[in-house]
Amino acid sequence: MIRISIDAMGGDVGPEVAVAGAAQALTRHPDISYILYGQQSVIEPLLASYPKLKDQARIVDCEIAVGMDEKPSQALRRGRNVSSMWRAIEAVKENESDVAVSAGNTGALMAMAMFCLKTMPDIDRPAIAGIWPTLKGESIVLDIGATIGADAKQLLDFALMGGAMARALFELKKPTVGLLNVGVEEVKGVEQVKEAGKFLREADIDNLDYAGFVEGDDLGRGTVDVFVVEGFTGNIALKTAEGTARQIAQYLRSAMSRTLMSRIGYLFARGAFQMMREKLDPRKVNGGVFLGLNGIVIKSHGSTDAEGYASAIEVAYDMVHNGLQAKIQHDLSEYHARNESPMGPEAA
Amino acid sequence: MIRISIDAMGGDVGPEVAVAGAAQALTRHPDISYILYGQQSVIEPLLASYPKLKDQARIVDCEIAVGMDEKPSQALRRGRNVSSMWRAIEAVKENESDVAVSAGNTGALMAMAMFCLKTMPDIDRPAIAGIWPTLKGESIVLDIGATIGADAKQLLDFALMGGAMARALFELKKPTVGLLNVGVEEVKGVEQVKEAGKFLREADIDNLDYAGFVEGDDLGRGTVDVFVVEGFTGNIALKTAEGTARQIAQYLRSAMSRTLMSRIGYLFARGAFQMMREKLDPRKVNGGVFLGLNGIVIKSHGSTDAEGYASAIEVAYDMVHNGLQAKIQHDLSEYHARNESPMGPEAA
Repeated sequence: MIRISIDAMGGDVGPEVAVAGAAQALTRHPDISYILYGQQSVIEPLLASYPKLKDQARIVDCEIAVGMDEKPSQALRRGRNVSSMWRAIEAVKENESDVAVSAGNTGALMAMAMFCLKTMPDIDRPAIAGIWPTLKGESIVLDIGATIGADAKQLLDFALMGGAMARALFELKKPTVGLLNVGVEEVKGVEQVKEAGKFLREADIDNLDYAGFVEGDDLGRGTVDVFVVEGFTGNIALKTAEGTARQIAQYLRSAMSRTLMSRIGYLFARGAFQMMREKLDPRKVNGGVFLGLNGIVIKSHGSTDAEGYASAIEVAYDMVHNGLQAKIQHDLSEYHARNESPMGPEAA
Repeated sequence: MIRISIDAMGGDVGPEVAVAGAAQALTRHPDISYILYGQQSVIEPLLASYPKLKDQARIVDCEIAVGMDEKPSQALRRGRNVSSMWRAIEAVKENESDVAVSAGNTGALMAMAMFCLKTMPDIDRPAIAGIWPTLKGESIVLDIGATIGADAKQLLDFALMGGAMARALFELKKPTVGLLNVGVEEVKGVEQVKEAGKFLREADIDNLDYAGFVEGDDLGRGTVDVFVVEGFTGNIALKTAEGTARQIAQYLRSAMSRTLMSRIGYLFARGAFQMMREKLDPRKVNGGVFLGLNGIVIKSHGSTDAEGYASAIEVAYDMVHNGLQAKIQHDLSEYHARNESPMGPEAA
């Protein structure tokens, strides 16, 4: 059984999407059991449409819901111990669930997750890992917005955690890991990226294949399984790619509807366009994974629908099922056993 | 007459592209005169095919060409005073030309440009500004890779220089300027971005409309005319967008050739796809502008063809024709007259 706690009040839409998404994920993974945190009077009637989900879910009534625009500090003050978001996370801490999922506001969710679960012993700062569709399939990109201005040690931690996640998600033995930089030559880039590259080259981790520096255009190519980057740049890269995809989709829509010939062409190629849409469907890669905490928390996109929410739940499922936390702990211990000082042999 | 000096040896292909590009730009702007720096024995025969260009160009023989993989320091050692790249830039310094264009390696070009032209009196560090195609048309993005780790004062300089460039390139009276950040709320983001935002809000520049923080997905939308970002993140954002565009083009190609129906559809919609290709044609927005130096230098993409090279020359033409340097100087003086200390009123 995989036990998943859901902050049913989070997201732009709220419980309808969370409940429908939970039901959808359950049809594909019948071994999920849920705890749904939120307003019982709202959630209970929704369950009526999903008899299977009703059997596998228990509702915990919470009066407080964290707002999508609430600042993290305000959310913590108002929602600590009592909000649906807090309690979904706390269930992981209390070992009532294996993983928490929320579509609530990212800043508040990260603040509560850090406050409640705390970072793992060897980890300074958490990261959010995203799943990036590439020409080869999928890659993991972290950090996409948790830690602004990561130093070399933190980038190294991100590499280790991202590698463990790639093993859990893609079931790879030895994922390739690259550091995002502004050039592939060893001399280029910011000091902390160069230093992290040195650590990774010297670290010699069994489960990780360090591939050196990679650039922004390697993301779409899927050059490596794991792209490591500091959170400010990672967040801007992610949103730039999303924006570019929307921009091109918009170009394509106007081009295809402009003339009679292109409209006829569209009719013939409808299947191809459907395939494109599926390739670019952001719902299919929904689910940011909070890494580096004593427990797994998954952030679903706030504006997603039931299918997107189900994807986030399925990422949560995979992370638990494939032992993400144990893999992270294993890689961290291996690294530290081989490199006495946490800053690598050079600093010892 | 607009006088343009060309480093004819730069780029992956070399003089063929530079000469053909110069000829093409000349047909659209007959008031250009060129100085072509490079190996006379190679360039002279190429001019035979372009009689108009031959009339408007003079060749300056240079033995040394900077290699595409040469490190900036090495390029400076070997090519200072003697290489085609150096001499094309020096022509601007000596007022023999109004602007220099090169498709040579960016690091070497920036190093030589800084060494030869020096930064403008009020500017600490130069920036490279790129032209970004958006749903609204085009925006300017800077810095895309000259200055890694810009501080608040440098971001402010980038905003002023980018605003001046938008006035020169788009002929706008009061371009909108946004700071790239990880969230639009005033509280988010790195310290230097927040501080730059404060400077810009308080600066009250006549020629510039500060629009606050913008995010990565605003780039494709064209939310503002000028996007300001530190060079590491800017470079990764640019390459991420290029990579995403290539990725989607690849998806589209395979989708359209997969079935007979889609191939028929493609034939009907050929005009629409041609329009798409033109929208996404990187040659049309070729030309990175080095800002903040005592003279204008334009970097063309190393792998572009004659049409792309002509675009870079036309950016050079527009920058001179519309008085970019005078506009930058005007805005810098205005800012400093109103804000005694270069760090803004707060630091005074």
